[in-house]
Amino acid sequence: MAPPLHFEVQARDGAARAGRITLPHGTIDTPVFMPVGTRAAMRGLTPAELERLGVQIVLSNTYHLMLKPGEGIIQKAGGLHRFMGWSHPILTDSGGFQVFSLQKTQIDDHGVRFRWEESGEPVELTPERSMLVQQALGADIAMAFDECPPYPCTEAAAAAAVRRTRLWAKRSREAHTREDQALFGIVQGSVYRALREESVRDITALDFPGVAIGGLSVGEGLELMAEVLDYTAPLLPEGKPRYVMGIGYPADVVEAVARGIDMMDCVIPTRLARGASLFTRRGRIRVTDRRYARDLFPPDAGCSCYTCTNFTRAYLRHLFLADEILGTILGALHNVAFYMDLMKEVRASIVAGTFADVRAKWRALGGTPAGTAARAEGPKPRPEE
Amino acid sequence: MAPPLHFEVQARDGAARAGRITLPHGTIDTPVFMPVGTRAAMRGLTPAELERLGVQIVLSNTYHLMLKPGEGIIQKAGGLHRFMGWSHPILTDSGGFQVFSLQKTQIDDHGVRFRWEESGEPVELTPERSMLVQQALGADIAMAFDECPPYPCTEAAAAAAVRRTRLWAKRSREAHTREDQALFGIVQGSVYRALREESVRDITALDFPGVAIGGLSVGEGLELMAEVLDYTAPLLPEGKPRYVMGIGYPADVVEAVARGIDMMDCVIPTRLARGASLFTRRGRIRVTDRRYARDLFPPDAGCSCYTCTNFTRAYLRHLFLADEILGTILGALHNVAFYMDLMKEVRASIVAGTFADVRAKWRALGGTPAGTAARAEGPKPRPEE
Repeated sequence: MAPPLHFEVQARDGAARAGRITLPHGTIDTPVFMPVGTRAAMRGLTPAELERLGVQIVLSNTYHLMLKPGEGIIQKAGGLHRFMGWSHPILTDSGGFQVFSLQKTQIDDHGVRFRWEESGEPVELTPERSMLVQQALGADIAMAFDECPPYPCTEAAAAAAVRRTRLWAKRSREAHTREDQALFGIVQGSVYRALREESVRDITALDFPGVAIGGLSVGEGLELMAEVLDYTAPLLPEGKPRYVMGIGYPADVVEAVARGIDMMDCVIPTRLARGASLFTRRGRIRVTDRRYARDLFPPDAGCSCYTCTNFTRAYLRHLFLADEILGTILGALHNVAFYMDLMKEVRASIVAGTFADVRAKWRALGGTPAGTAARAEGPKPRPEE
Repeated sequence: MAPPLHFEVQARDGAARAGRITLPHGTIDTPVFMPVGTRAAMRGLTPAELERLGVQIVLSNTYHLMLKPGEGIIQKAGGLHRFMGWSHPILTDSGGFQVFSLQKTQIDDHGVRFRWEESGEPVELTPERSMLVQQALGADIAMAFDECPPYPCTEAAAAAAVRRTRLWAKRSREAHTREDQALFGIVQGSVYRALREESVRDITALDFPGVAIGGLSVGEGLELMAEVLDYTAPLLPEGKPRYVMGIGYPADVVEAVARGIDMMDCVIPTRLARGASLFTRRGRIRVTDRRYARDLFPPDAGCSCYTCTNFTRAYLRHLFLADEILGTILGALHNVAFYMDLMKEVRASIVAGTFADVRAKWRALGGTPAGTAARAEGPKPRPEE
């Protein structure tokens, strides 16, 4: 059987790279931004709409799916692609990230034990269980089970997480047998350079077909994130996709790309849309503001998405104030289109050798305000939020 | 200027008729079911999606729009079509229907006075004001301002409403000056045959380009509704579209068509979708029921809509239980597609002379359970619900 992932770098501009990843369910152009459909659904967008928007890969969350509806029914349905009606690539996370932020989660070398918030039911998650679940879900890319420490954390705690992440990466590797699914390793180490270097050595030694940098976008802010990427990314294998989990705002994404990152994911476009926050080429607007009550311009005059070519800020404001879910739909559609445009522009500029200009432009618009973690979404604050 | 409405009957089968209405924004095939976008938005469906579903005309509610966002901004935006991004025909109701069900509404021959539920603000609605608002909205079809009495109501109260509806119809006719908008008259008379006959005489004397039968689908049930239509519909002008407001379930729609009705509207497809109720060719299902937890069949095996060709009952159940708005979106998409299929089948059978078979089939599936009024929708119980 051919390996489930083929990666080719097609162009470079400084450390930034444009490439292509071929997966069992299709090909994705990198750098790629992956919208997140936490519960096997994108908030407000059908898979057909995502296709029209040019989305090539989506992320879904193992933690949520294993608890509801359970991986059994998804497997019975023919896997996550069939279940959610999305025939293109999918990436699932390992399920660990959300668990670490739950109250009373117990962690030891065996795995984590926690109580499911909804039922109080005790649940155990281990590298082996995570692999079983992810293999049942059947995404194109699965993630190794890692320990993601909170931010800030002491160097000792970060070191313990690096050690455990190494153990778990090895066990994930051994437990993972599905040949039509690529398993990525995850590097931890918080904001400690020596620990990041150690974790890179641990993870690259296991020869995963792709490597993620975890433990970022957890509250450290854009500058510190950039610093960690500055010394971590160059250590990663050249010929494999590099993925930073959970970022981010447009400027975060661009700064990651500038450091040689190929893949990113975040709930921001859909989550902000729910709150009436829309991205524009001049910064973000909250379309419910009174100032837009009689504003007949599109949300973003520079955008050619369905929302911006057919609707005004005044109409969108009306939808949100009237509690019409079409507001969330049109907002999500625009925000995801905005990210797709961003990635297209970034990729084209790498190919053209003009990435520095694009980077300067986006840098001016600012990054994650507080660098908050945003790797999964829900209507109310939930464990993962 | 050419008249804003042209109607042609193309085929008949018994009293049922298949025809075509040409309006400023396009042509509609009758009998037609009009989905309702109360607040200038369909719950869960973009205008582009409605187009894909073959929807030719939508209804929007004057009562809601005049209060929020106000007709002024809609007019400034270029009218309701531009505001809501829908370039095909629109019908607006007169705004009266919702007002009559509010507490403390005062009615006299001048008009109605009420307090807006949201702000307590006193509002007056008269035939003249309704025409001004509807002309500002600029739908293809506007409705005369009428008095719709509750059900049940005494013969005396129904007679008073018939008298006032006659007065107001005349004043509506006089106040309506927009030449690219057709104004329909409305017949009242509750369930009293003599009053219906009187009201038909009143309204047809005013020579509106289309006539509606109001005061049905307000709790009287399918049998009584059919009885009223039995003696009212034949009195209406042959060469003009006949519209029954606020119906209904599939069987209601078919029974109205059997009595020579050309137009119908109802919030049912989208409202029921929000509550996880889906129409199928074997009856209605509530997809959140436990029995669908592992059901990998489409919502309606006989349906070729996007929802039914891509998703299972188990997936839809998951979406509703996980509070994912994609559930409402896919549900609304299916339910509206279901009604469009129904109307296509009904229309084709009239042309083919086999309407009786179609009617028998749908009759078996049952009509409005309690004949409840459903002319506008909202997320919570609202004045109109």
